[in-house]
Amino acid sequence: MMYTRLVQDDLSLVENLMHRQALGENKDLRNALEIILSSGGKRIRPVITLLVGNMLNAPKPQLITLAASMEMLHTGTLVHDDLIDGSLLRRGHPTLNAKWSPGATVLTGDFVFAKAAELISDTHSVSAVNMFAKTLGEITSGEITQFFESKCNFNRDDYYERIYKKTASLFRTCCCAAAIISSADDETISSMCTFGYEIGMAFQILDDILDFTGEEMTIGKPVGNDLRSGLITLPVINYFENRPDDPDAQFFLNGKCDTFEFINRIDTIIDSIKNSEAISQSMKEAETFIARALDALHRQPASEERDALEEISVYIIQRKI
Amino acid sequence: MMYTRLVQDDLSLVENLMHRQALGENKDLRNALEIILSSGGKRIRPVITLLVGNMLNAPKPQLITLAASMEMLHTGTLVHDDLIDGSLLRRGHPTLNAKWSPGATVLTGDFVFAKAAELISDTHSVSAVNMFAKTLGEITSGEITQFFESKCNFNRDDYYERIYKKTASLFRTCCCAAAIISSADDETISSMCTFGYEIGMAFQILDDILDFTGEEMTIGKPVGNDLRSGLITLPVINYFENRPDDPDAQFFLNGKCDTFEFINRIDTIIDSIKNSEAISQSMKEAETFIARALDALHRQPASEERDALEEISVYIIQRKI
Repeated sequence: MMYTRLVQDDLSLVENLMHRQALGENKDLRNALEIILSSGGKRIRPVITLLVGNMLNAPKPQLITLAASMEMLHTGTLVHDDLIDGSLLRRGHPTLNAKWSPGATVLTGDFVFAKAAELISDTHSVSAVNMFAKTLGEITSGEITQFFESKCNFNRDDYYERIYKKTASLFRTCCCAAAIISSADDETISSMCTFGYEIGMAFQILDDILDFTGEEMTIGKPVGNDLRSGLITLPVINYFENRPDDPDAQFFLNGKCDTFEFINRIDTIIDSIKNSEAISQSMKEAETFIARALDALHRQPASEERDALEEISVYIIQRKI
Repeated sequence: MMYTRLVQDDLSLVENLMHRQALGENKDLRNALEIILSSGGKRIRPVITLLVGNMLNAPKPQLITLAASMEMLHTGTLVHDDLIDGSLLRRGHPTLNAKWSPGATVLTGDFVFAKAAELISDTHSVSAVNMFAKTLGEITSGEITQFFESKCNFNRDDYYERIYKKTASLFRTCCCAAAIISSADDETISSMCTFGYEIGMAFQILDDILDFTGEEMTIGKPVGNDLRSGLITLPVINYFENRPDDPDAQFFLNGKCDTFEFINRIDTIIDSIKNSEAISQSMKEAETFIARALDALHRQPASEERDALEEISVYIIQRKI
């Protein structure tokens, strides 16, 4: 993709900065950070941050620091997520949680958050720090809601709120903060915030679609994994809203998606959703978010970076992983 | 104590601000925060923050926000600590960990950190934010070292480094940041940083002394709890440095404090330390830290707040709990 060429040098600086965060620390912690950072993430958040910042002429050192902070924040949430879910693999690599005690994993996640916070404060932008803190709060609050309330929760508004907190909030902060440190005008900042929000929403919808349509080998977990754990995503909502009289709808409308009867039907339900119009309908919603993202993006003058951001926006809804 | 009268109104504002942090969130999270905040901490960190700020004429809203942020940061570390240690009680109340799943406890701690970060960014002081982030990193790094390396580690320098990270770093930030938001001159900021550091070190040494001399009912855990879990504190270091030829010294000098022979001897060892000169010797070290703290404090002109800070400094080494 074209963006690789545009950000590759900056992204190396971001990687170096992240890897330096555990210098001088306990060797187990240094090893843990290496494991986490080397386990092959897509780095989509720092890439977007760098492209928005470069498009708007952000001062380079601040931009590199911001991009590293955003990816570290994301990384910290993954460390704690894997612990909470008891996941033993992520992207085909063993999680920290699979090798370490829960205590060590909690502390490593806290350390990664602390370093993300230190990096964001190194940008010397109070607004960026404030957004960072709000986003950490939103991500955590979203996870807590998912933990306590989302089981069998068949509600479209709650779904959108959850994916905003879980994913779009951080994408939004990446783009907003990159515009802010570029000293862009309020209108530009506002369109970049919109751009980040919209691609973040689309990104999570795609994740939720891929949970049904992806190959087990590629996504690294069984098809329909969310539904199996009682989490209702957009394809499920679309499918049963289209079929209120389907006998299987009772499991969702009455909050009975952890009963024995449900578990007996789960493979059939997953298969039906996967092969239904609910998937293309969900794709259409993701495309609508991307269309709004591109509207916001196109308020900026044409540039190589703008083209690359457009390319990534399209990739977000076309990806298979 | 006199400081109660001086800060009581401000402290109520700090309490209110902390209790408001979960407004609008999931009800389990709101309940959790209530439980954590109502479990009777001494609130020594916000009290000191308020006194330093008021002494230096800090703008009130910023000072309240800073004090709340400091106590929330402390609270977040307690939530995760209890999980890591598997503690079921803190200050006589059941911990979150005793009632909730580890996942919910991890997320609640993360939420409290996020709110602490949001509060510190609301002070609009980049330096305060930076100190906050560094302190969170130091606390976590200290805990990680304690987790991986401190078992049977009989080393005075490592002990001081550990208690700095674990406790003094936050006391220091409370006082430094209060001076910074007061727009104090560099010399004043520097003496307040010193004051915070010194009382923080003394505070932790007292905790470590009380672990031997405290009443089980009052401190809420068995006497010698740290040593039982292999953690070497100042009284132990002083005791065996005074008796290099004591047969029990072998357990520490050879890192064998988790052997069966050691466990067999532990009650006797704890009793010997408790009744030895190592306690008063450790007290003397705590007093030295407090003397240096008072030197730094006395560089400020006399005021009611300065008197109250002096009173608290003395309380720190005289307390029984």
